Amino acid sequence: MEYRSIADVMNKDMIGAHVCIRGWIYRRSVVGGKAFIRVRDSSGVIQVVVDSGRLGEELVNELKNIGLEASVMACGTVREEPRAPGGYELEAESFKITGYSRDFPIKGGEGLEYLLDNRHLWIRSPRFAKILKVKHTVLEAGREYFTSNGWWEVNPPILTASACEGGATLFPVDYFGQKAYLSQSAQLYLEALIYVLEKVWSLTPSFRAERSRTRRHLAEYWHLEPEAAWYTMEDMMRVAEELVSHIVRRVLEERRGDLIDLGRNIERLKPAAEPPYPRIRYDEAVEILQKKGVNIKWGDDLGADEERILTMEFEKPFFVTHFPRQIKSFYMKVDPSNPNVVLGFDLLAPEGYGEIIGGGEREDNYDVLYQKIVEQGLNPDDYKWYLDLRRYGSVPHSGFGLGVERATMWIAGLDHIRDTLPFPRFRGRIYP
Amino acid sequence: MEYRSIADVMNKDMIGAHVCIRGWIYRRSVVGGKAFIRVRDSSGVIQVVVDSGRLGEELVNELKNIGLEASVMACGTVREEPRAPGGYELEAESFKITGYSRDFPIKGGEGLEYLLDNRHLWIRSPRFAKILKVKHTVLEAGREYFTSNGWWEVNPPILTASACEGGATLFPVDYFGQKAYLSQSAQLYLEALIYVLEKVWSLTPSFRAERSRTRRHLAEYWHLEPEAAWYTMEDMMRVAEELVSHIVRRVLEERRGDLIDLGRNIERLKPAAEPPYPRIRYDEAVEILQKKGVNIKWGDDLGADEERILTMEFEKPFFVTHFPRQIKSFYMKVDPSNPNVVLGFDLLAPEGYGEIIGGGEREDNYDVLYQKIVEQGLNPDDYKWYLDLRRYGSVPHSGFGLGVERATMWIAGLDHIRDTLPFPRFRGRIYP
Ligand SMILES: [Mg+2]
Ligand SMILES: [Mg+2]
Repeated sequence: MEYRSIADVMNKDMIGAHVCIRGWIYRRSVVGGKAFIRVRDSSGVIQVVVDSGRLGEELVNELKNIGLEASVMACGTVREEPRAPGGYELEAESFKITGYSRDFPIKGGEGLEYLLDNRHLWIRSPRFAKILKVKHTVLEAGREYFTSNGWWEVNPPILTASACEGGATLFPVDYFGQKAYLSQSAQLYLEALIYVLEKVWSLTPSFRAERSRTRRHLAEYWHLEPEAAWYTMEDMMRVAEELVSHIVRRVLEERRGDLIDLGRNIERLKPAAEPPYPRIRYDEAVEILQKKGVNIKWGDDLGADEERILTMEFEKPFFVTHFPRQIKSFYMKVDPSNPNVVLGFDLLAPEGYGEIIGGGEREDNYDVLYQKIVEQGLNPDDYKWYLDLRRYGSVPHSGFGLGVERATMWIAGLDHIRDTLPFPRFRGRIYP
Repeated sequence: MEYRSIADVMNKDMIGAHVCIRGWIYRRSVVGGKAFIRVRDSSGVIQVVVDSGRLGEELVNELKNIGLEASVMACGTVREEPRAPGGYELEAESFKITGYSRDFPIKGGEGLEYLLDNRHLWIRSPRFAKILKVKHTVLEAGREYFTSNGWWEVNPPILTASACEGGATLFPVDYFGQKAYLSQSAQLYLEALIYVLEKVWSLTPSFRAERSRTRRHLAEYWHLEPEAAWYTMEDMMRVAEELVSHIVRRVLEERRGDLIDLGRNIERLKPAAEPPYPRIRYDEAVEILQKKGVNIKWGDDLGADEERILTMEFEKPFFVTHFPRQIKSFYMKVDPSNPNVVLGFDLLAPEGYGEIIGGGEREDNYDVLYQKIVEQGLNPDDYKWYLDLRRYGSVPHSGFGLGVERATMWIAGLDHIRDTLPFPRFRGRIYP
């Protein structure tokens, strides 16, 4: 007998059919001589009715006290039942407990740290299943955009000898007795690879030793990064808005039910499915903020608070461009028409979420890049190979990085980035 | 004017067309008043003819000594030219040097360590472009198998508190002052996730501090790992052979030309495109080896040498199953019909390549698993959450891990695993 997914069984065409399902006990109650067991699998929840008249009093008695999350298999007949969740139930002809579950540690009402200590069990809640499914679609759609548009996937290294953006938030690794670091971005390596494949992308874990615990920072997150030869900042912004709108469209198509179950306001997400996205310059962002009474002056970076306020002005994700050179990384290309700003952009998600992408055009002139490395207090020796890329056939090029968890948090409408990963990592959390 | 890829231009339909291309100088020579510049981009190489009569003597003189790997743009007319590589050339009407390249450090004949120190430039050789493209297709096809068969992609953590398979080859990380490790396998976390999504997979970097430098070991590699609830070892072997044959089919379809350029014997790869793959038990493997005079006895692990000899017996990848329990990890399920062996399998690639997959059914009984952890000298406290998975609704389940670089090495027919990554990591190598 083949087992069916619960979602397949809960269907008008299946009424009267004899089927087998398996999964975990989500809820149970016994009324009269009947046990009503709600069984969940990865696709849904169905009510299974175990009648003592048919399957024996012993089984029904056992089910009266069966632990939640016990694993079970059941075969029986599908019936329409308006009182059951989803409108169907399975009248069991056989029912087997395959794995007991005594005193499942999560009963409801536990505190956050306890739940995080039991994350390996907490993730079984249907809410996490839905978030994980949204994440799955975000990842698949993101890759699909690149592979269907002629970009090459590459595997830059995670272990590196030098920092991408300075040392404050690096995790040191003992690498065969040498000191190495976990990558914060694949960018520098992607820049080497554009000389081979022109349009490249990678999806890798990135690591930042963020000391602060916030709603939108993780110590370990997934980074989707494209880099392309001959692309200007404007070209790359077009890639960014096409990528993000493609992801949003796919999630709206494939995970609409999950989004609704998660309480996501679909109408507020919809505008993001349609590019183009608005663009404002950093100068304008500062003006908007000052008009709203925010204490900010030209040259200050935009923090989470400033971003949140800006997002109230837009119904779609929007770009902020042309940042002051001193608040952006050494590798950003200076605007030829204004040496105080760089050809960099951030893409901010609306509804308060803020930055999900950072990118721009890269400095492609050896002398200028060398000087900027020195200017930012970095050691040019640490960037020898990276500087080489400007010595041998340099080309204009641009790229960006999408924080996959940031994007998922916004798309799923979550309060905290932590729940976009089954086993999130942030200061104080390495277990389980 | 739009730029075209070189491969697009080298086409009968393009003869006489006016096009623009851009890329890097691969070869150059000047004969009479004409410069013959071979330009490569990510798609191919074309000969560009720069005539001094048309574009000036100054340019042709400059091109006489132009450095290899300089970046250039050219517009002109496509002509059929049997003497040019690929049969076409571009008669330049304009030609621009966009990035110089003085004394490109790789001229041919350099030693391996020097080349590895210049890996960021060495990868520009057309050979690497072809390998990178094969890798791209291996990754895409691998994921495609899972997503099109109802498996859910998940993101297990890279930073972990405990070791998957013991501590000898772990990389320690300073995690906010705490000791953590880089993941060697996502398996244990995937096992937690099957209780949520049943059939899950992940593609993550895995890390092993291998002290020995061999042709088939890396310190950092990509690991494609599925895990499924309710799957037996036999079910999972079917997944493994479907996955690998799907990847091989896709590469044969999409990268045939690249394989041929790399010198891959296509005929010897073809059998792997068709499942099923042969299966032998460990017992039979030992017998075969003994008959061939190999000094091995029951209970010894199969090393690279033994694997190589075994692969001579098969034209396809093949499974070795039912290994002695003492040479396999604690989490492998003991064969109920023979407690000396476990329900584990390796998949070995033919032509001397050996193991590309290791997997099996996992121990799902709490008491047995606890005892095996103790038996192997590990501390059950380190596996508390993992043991919990057997306390709360345990289910039979199986999984495996595919070494993506091992598979790519075999499929592309490479001598060394190092070349399956642009920036490989192994003892002594962290730069560039
Ligand atoms: Mg910012
Ligand atoms: Mg082995």
